[in-house]
Amino acid sequence: MKIFVRALLIVLFLPLAAMAEDLPSWNDGKSKQAIIDFVTKVTDQNNPDYVKPEDRIAVFDNDGTLWTEQPYYVQLGFALDRVKTLAPAHPEWKEKEPFKSILQGDLAAVAKSGEKGLVDLVMETHAGQTTDEFAKIVQDWFATAKHPKTGKPYTDMTYLPMRELLDYLRAHGFKTYIVSGGGVEFMRPVTEALYGIPPEQVIGSTIVTKYTLSADVPVLAREAKIEFVNDGPGKPVGINKFIGRRPIFVAGNSDGDYEMMRWVTSGKQHGFAMLVHHTDADREYAYDRDSAFGKLDKALNEAERRNWLVVDMKADWKKIFAFEQ
Amino acid sequence: MKIFVRALLIVLFLPLAAMAEDLPSWNDGKSKQAIIDFVTKVTDQNNPDYVKPEDRIAVFDNDGTLWTEQPYYVQLGFALDRVKTLAPAHPEWKEKEPFKSILQGDLAAVAKSGEKGLVDLVMETHAGQTTDEFAKIVQDWFATAKHPKTGKPYTDMTYLPMRELLDYLRAHGFKTYIVSGGGVEFMRPVTEALYGIPPEQVIGSTIVTKYTLSADVPVLAREAKIEFVNDGPGKPVGINKFIGRRPIFVAGNSDGDYEMMRWVTSGKQHGFAMLVHHTDADREYAYDRDSAFGKLDKALNEAERRNWLVVDMKADWKKIFAFEQ
Repeated sequence: MKIFVRALLIVLFLPLAAMAEDLPSWNDGKSKQAIIDFVTKVTDQNNPDYVKPEDRIAVFDNDGTLWTEQPYYVQLGFALDRVKTLAPAHPEWKEKEPFKSILQGDLAAVAKSGEKGLVDLVMETHAGQTTDEFAKIVQDWFATAKHPKTGKPYTDMTYLPMRELLDYLRAHGFKTYIVSGGGVEFMRPVTEALYGIPPEQVIGSTIVTKYTLSADVPVLAREAKIEFVNDGPGKPVGINKFIGRRPIFVAGNSDGDYEMMRWVTSGKQHGFAMLVHHTDADREYAYDRDSAFGKLDKALNEAERRNWLVVDMKADWKKIFAFEQ
Repeated sequence: MKIFVRALLIVLFLPLAAMAEDLPSWNDGKSKQAIIDFVTKVTDQNNPDYVKPEDRIAVFDNDGTLWTEQPYYVQLGFALDRVKTLAPAHPEWKEKEPFKSILQGDLAAVAKSGEKGLVDLVMETHAGQTTDEFAKIVQDWFATAKHPKTGKPYTDMTYLPMRELLDYLRAHGFKTYIVSGGGVEFMRPVTEALYGIPPEQVIGSTIVTKYTLSADVPVLAREAKIEFVNDGPGKPVGINKFIGRRPIFVAGNSDGDYEMMRWVTSGKQHGFAMLVHHTDADREYAYDRDSAFGKLDKALNEAERRNWLVVDMKADWKKIFAFEQ
């Protein structure tokens, strides 16, 4: 009886599924074909490279891989807006970098404040409240904030072909994760809506949180102290810590993804790695080796000999954003 | 057509499901009923306390909640055996505590070496290799190690009623996690087989790991440095860091679970908390307030006023271990 129902389901639904085209915003060509070939291979029980569903883990960088990271990281946009919001309570910022330059609208000077300036900025704008309060602040910000170039909500700045790729992998039994240098509590409030990725599948940088009681109610307080930087060599460390399995698919776009690409492609199961190469100055941005955000140099140099796919956004993607005509 | 298939499935399979008794190793009574009432309530769309499947997160302590923690934590058993295995390469251990006492079989003296001794013990026995190597060491150990009292493999020392509870929750759309003070890389190699919990749903204490190249192959090296202690107030912190949602079900057995029980039961959705109370000296062990492992005092004192279920192992469980006649 069970077999009968299964057969019925296959007959009814398989043709429907087969009718929908895979990866519709990808142009036909070697990039799209390489992805499809890999997925076909690891999901075919008769193929020697078959991978069981529970081991089909796919990890995606976020900034520049799933959404735009130019002219600056979305999270930096958040921090800049937070400085403006919090400024009335911080008169000292008028004389203190990087806050002074931010308040004067001089972003070039902000970059000059270096790593210490950036850490101060994150600490002042991302800590000092409970985790619940911070999630609310992030949600409220995303509801109104706009990308500085397109004027679209940041939530519209995701790459349609990459969202299709996430869907395609999930339809083939993959579990999809974000593995980003961004703050995990900055991403989690929106990843389900943007990418279909639930909070527990988002790995990112963290600050220290502490359990404490507020009027006898337990809260987690966000402290102004960096706990873990999930970037570069931190990415395979984060993957191992959170997932405890080695992924078989990885997508990145910068040298910050290099180590996790090495990690994924050196396992027992031959993993697939792809780099999103920003080549479209008209529809998005064109940059690689000289970029301040998402610098791509070493990974690009080694891509060919490591058999990593380099996706050419201009050539490979029919559409970049869903809002394009 | 879709509706027809769905109806057919319901007709065919519902009676089968209803025939299997829920929680068969639990005696009928208020504990079993409280669990069933809670699950029935949060899965009933017409109930005001209904919870969407994606928010049905259940977290379980491991030592003393899912498996025996007496006469000492399983992981301590592992460390003791590792000391014996590694001793030939460490002649200095003959004169150094706690190694000296371990090698002489004097476990009482080991306890006297205090926190520093315990940390030294963990560092010497759990670090210095790659993550892949350590996973293999753990797997090999579990394949042969025996519980000191029963002589059964440690993997047989899980509580049957708790495994049924995990199954029951999952059958009702819950995602089940382990949230343990134990080392995450000690648990992950066995949790899928023991509890049906995959590695990515195991949260535990961690030591620092570092990405490095070994003969140009990326590895993660385990360093002799504690990174995060997932116990007491660390448990809600770990839950938030790894899951990013507040669970609605928690099971623990000691004051080390107190803070996560507070955290789970103070959310917007009314969470359910239960304590496993070790009351059966014949079939397992009887202990609470004066125990060296899994001390239960504060949580027990507050259970009634916080409406936390206290499960009486002796009275509530028909069978504790699957191997019982």
